[in-house]
Amino acid sequence: MTSRDDLALANRLADAAGNAIRPFFRARYDTDYKSDASPVTEADRAAEAAIRAILEKERPGDGIIGEEYGAVREDAERVWILDPIDGTRSFIAGRPIFGTLIALTQAGWPTVGIIDQPIAAERWAGMVGRPTTLNGLPAKTRACRQLSDAILASTAPQLFAGCTGEHFSVLARDCRDTVWGGDCYNYALLASGHVDIVVESGLKLHDLAALVPVVEGAGGRMCDWSGDPLSADSDGNVIAVGDPARVDDILEALNAGHAAHE
Amino acid sequence: MTSRDDLALANRLADAAGNAIRPFFRARYDTDYKSDASPVTEADRAAEAAIRAILEKERPGDGIIGEEYGAVREDAERVWILDPIDGTRSFIAGRPIFGTLIALTQAGWPTVGIIDQPIAAERWAGMVGRPTTLNGLPAKTRACRQLSDAILASTAPQLFAGCTGEHFSVLARDCRDTVWGGDCYNYALLASGHVDIVVESGLKLHDLAALVPVVEGAGGRMCDWSGDPLSADSDGNVIAVGDPARVDDILEALNAGHAAHE
Repeated sequence: MTSRDDLALANRLADAAGNAIRPFFRARYDTDYKSDASPVTEADRAAEAAIRAILEKERPGDGIIGEEYGAVREDAERVWILDPIDGTRSFIAGRPIFGTLIALTQAGWPTVGIIDQPIAAERWAGMVGRPTTLNGLPAKTRACRQLSDAILASTAPQLFAGCTGEHFSVLARDCRDTVWGGDCYNYALLASGHVDIVVESGLKLHDLAALVPVVEGAGGRMCDWSGDPLSADSDGNVIAVGDPARVDDILEALNAGHAAHE
Repeated sequence: MTSRDDLALANRLADAAGNAIRPFFRARYDTDYKSDASPVTEADRAAEAAIRAILEKERPGDGIIGEEYGAVREDAERVWILDPIDGTRSFIAGRPIFGTLIALTQAGWPTVGIIDQPIAAERWAGMVGRPTTLNGLPAKTRACRQLSDAILASTAPQLFAGCTGEHFSVLARDCRDTVWGGDCYNYALLASGHVDIVVESGLKLHDLAALVPVVEGAGGRMCDWSGDPLSADSDGNVIAVGDPARVDDILEALNAGHAAHE
């Protein structure tokens, strides 16, 4: 099977998730809160179930790790990583800037990634060795000559664990402007050249696997707060940057925040 | 002239603003930064100019106060208050959750208000004595039995002036969840019953005049942090609540934050 088959399948998975999600948007549904106080709705569960039903039928040997229904065959060579609604808080508030995240990892590395916004009908698709697309058209990050030109985005101040929020604040002071909210949609907008930097803390594997092919296939780079590539063992402190020439500046600012904190 | 004429005119003003804004969304344009570091783009200016051209032709006696082009005849009995793009940072980042705000005040009180999102084609329209609508259909706030059920929204932590951020934090701890980003779109989603409370600091007249008829015509209430009605002289500390029965709880939490700070 070719990589293009994988991408075509990922697109069908995103279609199924979107069909499951749309009837719930701004409608009535049950919401539960997990032990970490994060919400999960009927829409999250319906979307992940729709994706898993297709995978179990068409790729019975592949592993699946999903936010809502856990892991099967997670040691398989090929594993699909699913977050049916990334940005459930945004979904609940009726904002069309949440996203369905679908990644395929091969030997632990994400090779296919999709960020799908089913209300605005926007789909970013990335695949190793292929340019990222938004609804089929090329998506490109933009150049950023210096931090003071950068639009920085992050989902919520309360998501920064421990002292990471202070490090973020130092970076934010060096940037042109900071926008809040957005979840995966920030990374998608970075891939399309509207946002320059996304810095977050506390991301899990299902939050970040799909982002990597999308951002890197658009010309950007993703790494952790030490500048190392993201992996399944990453600590969840994430940097995405549209212009890879700014990685060192970002690391320096975050470390200055570290020095200031100690 | 009847109030319905005013609402029809406000709708045409919003149409004109949207037509001016859409070509700039996610495109190239000039951005300047004002003395308070807030951004203004070609799109802000084009939209306000489009609105003012219609008003000058059709309502030459009415006053106009606009964010970008200032005030004329501001002591008139009827004054239009304009924010061509509320949420310019969001607009710049490519998010379809900014809004055009158009209010008509009569004897200083906002009687017509529009929140228009031209990318998603969503328009909330409020008028004193008439139910608020979203794209022509009734919009209603929802009941909220206690703060611990409430979805709280606010645009950005850095917009809280002085110690107001600490007061907000106390309220946020009492609420179910907090979502960040959103600008006027938060108030629109509150009017449609998806968000329960919006609390912000530092709003100016052009940020808030249009919100009042939309929120109150949907069954909600707006006031300042003392519980008093908003006016042109308000200090910019704003509360919007979908269920007016929760106003006292919000004031109590914000004041507890005040006590904690002192």
